Amino acid sequence: MSDNEQNVIKVPEPSLRRLPWYLSNAKLLKNKGEHFVSSTQISKEINIDASQIAKDLSYVNISGRTRVGYDIDDLIAVLEDFLGFTNMHKAFLFGVGSLGGALLRDSGLNHFGLEIVAGFDVNPELVGTFINGIPIFHSDDFQAKMLEYNVNIGVLTVPIEIAQNITDKMIEGGVKAVWNFTPLRIRVPEDIVVQNTSLYAHLAVMFNRLNFNQIK
Amino acid sequence: MSDNEQNVIKVPEPSLRRLPWYLSNAKLLKNKGEHFVSSTQISKEINIDASQIAKDLSYVNISGRTRVGYDIDDLIAVLEDFLGFTNMHKAFLFGVGSLGGALLRDSGLNHFGLEIVAGFDVNPELVGTFINGIPIFHSDDFQAKMLEYNVNIGVLTVPIEIAQNITDKMIEGGVKAVWNFTPLRIRVPEDIVVQNTSLYAHLAVMFNRLNFNQIK
Repeated sequence: MSDNEQNVIKVPEPSLRRLPWYLSNAKLLKNKGEHFVSSTQISKEINIDASQIAKDLSYVNISGRTRVGYDIDDLIAVLEDFLGFTNMHKAFLFGVGSLGGALLRDSGLNHFGLEIVAGFDVNPELVGTFINGIPIFHSDDFQAKMLEYNVNIGVLTVPIEIAQNITDKMIEGGVKAVWNFTPLRIRVPEDIVVQNTSLYAHLAVMFNRLNFNQIK
Repeated sequence: MSDNEQNVIKVPEPSLRRLPWYLSNAKLLKNKGEHFVSSTQISKEINIDASQIAKDLSYVNISGRTRVGYDIDDLIAVLEDFLGFTNMHKAFLFGVGSLGGALLRDSGLNHFGLEIVAGFDVNPELVGTFINGIPIFHSDDFQAKMLEYNVNIGVLTVPIEIAQNITDKMIEGGVKAVWNFTPLRIRVPEDIVVQNTSLYAHLAVMFNRLNFNQIK
């Protein structure tokens, strides 16, 4: 079964979000010298129901053996492939401010399949420079650079005032998926993928829970 | 009603996650010169049911006026306060690698109530240096530094192999909330807050959806 055919299944988002946990867990167990792992073992480690784990893993092309479980090397390889971490996906980043610059410097993203190949900004002090070896172009050059690079992901780290406008331009230029780090809910056509990662929303949840624990 | 009493309500997580959207939206409308906003208006902008928005906002100490809606300045002030963005929360960061270093450089977190006051690592090339003005200490000095700084949040950006061990040490030292950026599901006592922000899990969801759209 090819990578493409395999991924054609639209896996439910909660399952997709749990798969990286199983991957991390398998890597840890491999480091400890283990060769096989069962869903029951993973279940004990990460406190998720074993039947849920088995169900999540059923979306992935792997089958365990009775009593011994999954071969750890196979499980790691299959999960990394399925999650898209082995294929490099090229992306442009829009808005080289504080968070944008930080993401350009995070080479860890490379190990999980994302290669940011260029940044875009209008700040004359940034345009023409490099961060972590990645060139920063003027936002006006985006359309031309789309023809030059083979990119279909846009990372959005601009101020909220221009977030929708830049999103529209990205999509007009051919971007198919937007990784939105702004706290703004952007509007896109139906066939465009949006992944919201709002660090600030996560902070708000954490502060509220912390406050709650301290008062109760 | 004091800040503490107000936040003692355990707001459901989905509502808490939506509140920053309303805040961003209110800020945008204020920039455009608006003075009032209704849940119906917000609903049109961000495509969430108006009754859901009104319900979410009912957790916050604000009341709208019939026909005109919420006073925008009040709404912004009340939301920022409720979400904890106006109080500075001090944090330590553990693991000054690629992502950890990037977060130290992201001064945007300051505007949303998080001040990372120190980083910890074992790398001799990092210990004793500063990133963005923030000192990096040796991990062994953590307990001593806990007495010196008034910190109750730990940002976790270490390799997965040591993520659980460092978490245990943080909690032993008095950390009450862990912002976990590792793809590992960490185990903590019941009274400790964990906020998982796995960039890699988000990437996996985005890749899968992108792939699905391209094949279908």
